[in-house]
Amino acid sequence: MPKIDMDAVPERRGSGYPDPFKAAYANRIKQPLGDAAGLTQFGVNLTRMAPGTGTALRHWHENEDEFVYVLEGELVLIEDEGETVLRAGDAAGFKAGVPNGHCLVNRSDREAVILEVGTRAPTERGHYPDVDLMAVKDGGGFKFIHKSGEPYA
Amino acid sequence: MPKIDMDAVPERRGSGYPDPFKAAYANRIKQPLGDAAGLTQFGVNLTRMAPGTGTALRHWHENEDEFVYVLEGELVLIEDEGETVLRAGDAAGFKAGVPNGHCLVNRSDREAVILEVGTRAPTERGHYPDVDLMAVKDGGGFKFIHKSGEPYA
Repeated sequence: MPKIDMDAVPERRGSGYPDPFKAAYANRIKQPLGDAAGLTQFGVNLTRMAPGTGTALRHWHENEDEFVYVLEGELVLIEDEGETVLRAGDAAGFKAGVPNGHCLVNRSDREAVILEVGTRAPTERGHYPDVDLMAVKDGGGFKFIHKSGEPYA
Repeated sequence: MPKIDMDAVPERRGSGYPDPFKAAYANRIKQPLGDAAGLTQFGVNLTRMAPGTGTALRHWHENEDEFVYVLEGELVLIEDEGETVLRAGDAAGFKAGVPNGHCLVNRSDREAVILEVGTRAPTERGHYPDVDLMAVKDGGGFKFIHKSGEPYA
């Protein structure tokens, strides 16, 4: 059945970031809708963010296009040039390989909800300009390492 | 600027289907949001459908995953097994290579709006089980041909 049973899609609460980055994303909940439908070429998450949390640490991808559409609430898009408010009905796209870190932060007093889409490339490097973190994928899932290449303990 | 200026995204009204299939999609309007952000790995359209029209002729793709999320209104998903109603907040996914033709039709009395996402594979065959039509792409854009391989006049 191609229609997705939204109530049956698991909720992934929090992030896979290592300490000390993990705490800020404890109130972020993702439902992997694309996975639920058996899709493999791109991921689609329905992501809910409580006030004070956001989509991710500011980052950019070498190989994977990204797209977000705001369904509810208000988020602040942060990138090299500064900040831009996104409200319900707004959208943004992030072309793979453009070295401009981005994230969306919920500074409002109510939940924000987005659809986020990202290509599933077999290998990837995610760059985090503000912190000592890199995301690497070589055929499996993402792992987080220091910029030196050392693993997080 | 990653934020998409929605008012500046061109509206593609109607379809590229040959006659006699074209008329039923005259009141379908697509805004290519992914293209507007420079994305190339997948397409994202904001698609508005007046009563009586729909997403497409019933079809399936060999190579490209597809995903839809209903933003407004009500649509009927038609596939081999029958019909399923999708309302705002519902979603569906269609895995590449699954030979189950699908489309969404607006049988309601008001506009329906969806976000639709599809991979951009370099080569593709789109199959239309109900009509004498095939969509082919070999490195360029889609062309529509008869199932015999003959072009439409």
